[in-house]
Amino acid sequence: MEFSSKVLEKAVNEISQLPGIGKRTALRLVLHLLKQPKEQTVFLSQALLTMREEIKFCLNCHNLSDVTICEICSNKNRDHKIICVVEDVRDVMAIENTGQYRGVYHVLGGKISPIDGVGPNQLNINSLVKKVKSGAVSEVIFALSSTMEGDTTNFYIYKQIQESSIITSTIARGIAVGDELEYADEVTLGRSILQRIPFENAFKNY
Amino acid sequence: MEFSSKVLEKAVNEISQLPGIGKRTALRLVLHLLKQPKEQTVFLSQALLTMREEIKFCLNCHNLSDVTICEICSNKNRDHKIICVVEDVRDVMAIENTGQYRGVYHVLGGKISPIDGVGPNQLNINSLVKKVKSGAVSEVIFALSSTMEGDTTNFYIYKQIQESSIITSTIARGIAVGDELEYADEVTLGRSILQRIPFENAFKNY
Ligand SMILES: [Zn+2]
Ligand SMILES: [Zn+2]
Repeated sequence: MEFSSKVLEKAVNEISQLPGIGKRTALRLVLHLLKQPKEQTVFLSQALLTMREEIKFCLNCHNLSDVTICEICSNKNRDHKIICVVEDVRDVMAIENTGQYRGVYHVLGGKISPIDGVGPNQLNINSLVKKVKSGAVSEVIFALSSTMEGDTTNFYIYKQIQESSIITSTIARGIAVGDELEYADEVTLGRSILQRIPFENAFKNY
Repeated sequence: MEFSSKVLEKAVNEISQLPGIGKRTALRLVLHLLKQPKEQTVFLSQALLTMREEIKFCLNCHNLSDVTICEICSNKNRDHKIICVVEDVRDVMAIENTGQYRGVYHVLGGKISPIDGVGPNQLNINSLVKKVKSGAVSEVIFALSSTMEGDTTNFYIYKQIQESSIITSTIARGIAVGDELEYADEVTLGRSILQRIPFENAFKNY
């Protein structure tokens, strides 16, 4: 791409460093910003900078937060003995959205993935194991995605905490509520039969 | 979406103001930036700000530029009597890329589109008409996309300059070089038959 302006080229190059955004898309975004009031670009670049400089990782659960101990960890109405292990803040948001969970979280910051160069030491695993071994935990719920990386990570953590006298569980996999059986994939359908639950439990409110 | 951090929420909201970027994508981009060195976010927000504050529109052709008269308009080796009318900087870049065009440009900044509230006065049309009527132009090439908006815009401009003793032309439409006829759409194929050119011209280097 030959640009007619260096400042245009630089902006396009920086934007297209972002994953999934090519140069064409970046150029389209820049042209959009040029048509909007200058303030929009000022607010955008200010918000990015402030976010990157001020955001914190909760010292206890490693979730993104504005303070050193996040709102969930400092909430006395939550059950701090139950820990849900998730990959990142999006999973916390998704589970919080259900309104069904009253425990706390532990955010790993990713999954073990040798291909991407992510080993256990790049993740927040040690602090979780320490927490469990301290005796302050009664249940660990694994809620990673059910991929090879997710299963590897679950198992790696499980091996280190299995001797503790705590309950370990994983979130239920199965046919989504409202979905037709005939469209479900075989693996999911198979699991949902093997891991069937007592009929009356399906209508309980937990 | 319930965010665990206000600065995170603000960044996601600002990013998702951009066209084609929803909140999920914005959150994914922010999480990416958090995994990269702080410098990447600093460079990105700096580049956006600098671009928005320093970029200029060439006083002559309205193309994006770092200076008041762009490189193409100030290039004495180009034919300033031939003006190619385009929608925006992306078209200039695309045509420049071919290396086949030695005239100059006039960037309208959009197309007439009543649905989007874009009328002739929002576009750089008057300055083009003035240029043509000044007598300094020998040919105007219309190179807008062949949509209803493009045709409307072409025709609106054409009506205002048709009495000038200049050549007006539009870029050729037809089957793309290398494309199979059977996969071409009917409109394009129809046009390429009606607007056929002498056989020997197809192999000329212009
Ligand atoms: Zn926390
Ligand atoms: Zn110019």
